[in-house]
Amino acid sequence: MTITIALDAMGGDHGPRATVSAALSFLRAKSDASLILVGQPEPIQSELKRQGAHLSERLRLTPATEVVRMDEPPAQALRGKRDSSMRVAITLVRDGEAAACVSAGNTGALMATAHFVLKTLPGIDRPAIVTALPTVRGHVYLLDLGANVECSAEQLRQFAIMGSIVATAVGGKQRPSVGLLNVGVEDIKGNQTVKAAAQLLQVSGLNYIGYVEGDGIYAGETDVIVCDGFVGNITLKASEGLARMIRQFMKEEFQRHLGTRLAGLVARPVLRAFGRRVDPKRYNGATLVGLNGVVVKSHGSADAVSLCNALEVALREAQQNIPDLIRRELEPSPQQGLA
Amino acid sequence: MTITIALDAMGGDHGPRATVSAALSFLRAKSDASLILVGQPEPIQSELKRQGAHLSERLRLTPATEVVRMDEPPAQALRGKRDSSMRVAITLVRDGEAAACVSAGNTGALMATAHFVLKTLPGIDRPAIVTALPTVRGHVYLLDLGANVECSAEQLRQFAIMGSIVATAVGGKQRPSVGLLNVGVEDIKGNQTVKAAAQLLQVSGLNYIGYVEGDGIYAGETDVIVCDGFVGNITLKASEGLARMIRQFMKEEFQRHLGTRLAGLVARPVLRAFGRRVDPKRYNGATLVGLNGVVVKSHGSADAVSLCNALEVALREAQQNIPDLIRRELEPSPQQGLA
Repeated sequence: MTITIALDAMGGDHGPRATVSAALSFLRAKSDASLILVGQPEPIQSELKRQGAHLSERLRLTPATEVVRMDEPPAQALRGKRDSSMRVAITLVRDGEAAACVSAGNTGALMATAHFVLKTLPGIDRPAIVTALPTVRGHVYLLDLGANVECSAEQLRQFAIMGSIVATAVGGKQRPSVGLLNVGVEDIKGNQTVKAAAQLLQVSGLNYIGYVEGDGIYAGETDVIVCDGFVGNITLKASEGLARMIRQFMKEEFQRHLGTRLAGLVARPVLRAFGRRVDPKRYNGATLVGLNGVVVKSHGSADAVSLCNALEVALREAQQNIPDLIRRELEPSPQQGLA
Repeated sequence: MTITIALDAMGGDHGPRATVSAALSFLRAKSDASLILVGQPEPIQSELKRQGAHLSERLRLTPATEVVRMDEPPAQALRGKRDSSMRVAITLVRDGEAAACVSAGNTGALMATAHFVLKTLPGIDRPAIVTALPTVRGHVYLLDLGANVECSAEQLRQFAIMGSIVATAVGGKQRPSVGLLNVGVEDIKGNQTVKAAAQLLQVSGLNYIGYVEGDGIYAGETDVIVCDGFVGNITLKASEGLARMIRQFMKEEFQRHLGTRLAGLVARPVLRAFGRRVDPKRYNGATLVGLNGVVVKSHGSADAVSLCNALEVALREAQQNIPDLIRRELEPSPQQGLA
């Protein structure tokens, strides 16, 4: 069965130039998928023409007159731009015309709009942002990455459930292990919320293995790691900043030790392979989980390669129907209903 | 003038083997410093002998019968081990026999004991842990790194003052810029505490430049970055974990692309230089600021090189008399006194 994904063609720092290019690569790679480009027809059509492509049954266009700016306050985007490319793409998911949507636009506006249009699933207080990060052993699903700057213990429990479902359905982990991000592994460590969340997780039926420290993320100590959006966002962005710095240092050291020409020869394949393993591009495509629909957020600065990866994430999550898995996990079991 | 530093010779994963070796290197490098090794005389003496050294006017020994275990609860260490090497070293600072102390022991026990023995400076609610991290432009002082898992806005203001003093006195920054770690740079971003702290910092007289995101740490956007100890600890440890993972990936990629022998030849100097620039060892030596005395915490796993670096951090902070600078900054000015 063909799965259709709505792509906010106007979102991100590079607009249609990147989104159209990503769309074409994606369709070449995934013969069982089709796309709806959402946005202003003129720039999209002219970009299609420039890239020697045209609309087809697998690549349709749904017009939207407005564009949410990258720095626009979310509330303003939500109230003031009802015909934005972002909102129309989300509405296509709500109406069942697309199985998922992808946007590289303004994160706050995307969260506010998706939350408003799609609503949260029963049993979920607030959506969370989850992504896969590389580890020495494979990858880990970390959430929340910034949707909620203040979280209750109960929300952290919900994040753990949603993270486990994603790790199983998309990451292929059977009974994924879940850790709670903390400043130490002993019971006495942490703030009040983390301690309360640990108690909830111990009786959750999940494969909860306890606290994980910051270095446990990349050591691959667990399949899922849960934290509030304040900590998660800062940790993720600090990691991106560090990876960028290390890459720059490595290039400088190669040149210093090998000279510019030999460095280029030797370092290029190594740095490129390294990039494939830790580059945010490869891990682009964070999902807003907990909503009645699959919404994937791409980096604002994403190029066509990164955006294509975000489309693949959306495709996998739509194929697995993550929202439905979460809904079924949280609905009262028949036994409970009869009791 | 000779500055004397007390070294907890029993602390850390490697005990006297590492501490004695670090002490000897440090004394060779710093002719204006002397050391007091604190701990059980027998293992220290036998380690000195093994390394072909002996006690002298510049290398004295103060006995302490007990050792705080790395996993011992801080309260138990504080109440139950009054003659621990850690506590005796701190007491030497309180009594003016040493200008600073260094321990690679149990962090929680060191904080609790230092807090109890030395007390906080007037105007400081709680001590904080600060360290310098590498950035693309130089380095940044980040605090708190884990002393306080829950912080008030007022505490964050105090951290900003202390961080600025360290950045000036030790880092040589004139009027250091201060940022507040947050999930975005816009005013509306962040939790309640961060927003309240921003208001305090705007009228603090510090060179406060606003919010900094996680990637701003390594981009070197500011000289000082302030956060609560929960976020700071997780960010620091996640960075250490990521740097370790990247190093492993790089080694693997070198071998894959160049073969094992050539990789060793080419990669070794590059990886070593890279290590010098981002390795935690080089940045070893986190300071507990806000106390009536200089206390430097070394990594528990620190080897002699790392420990020697922690001793150098302690020497610089003692030379500058950081506690006195903080005291003077916080005491009411004459104008205020007269008003």
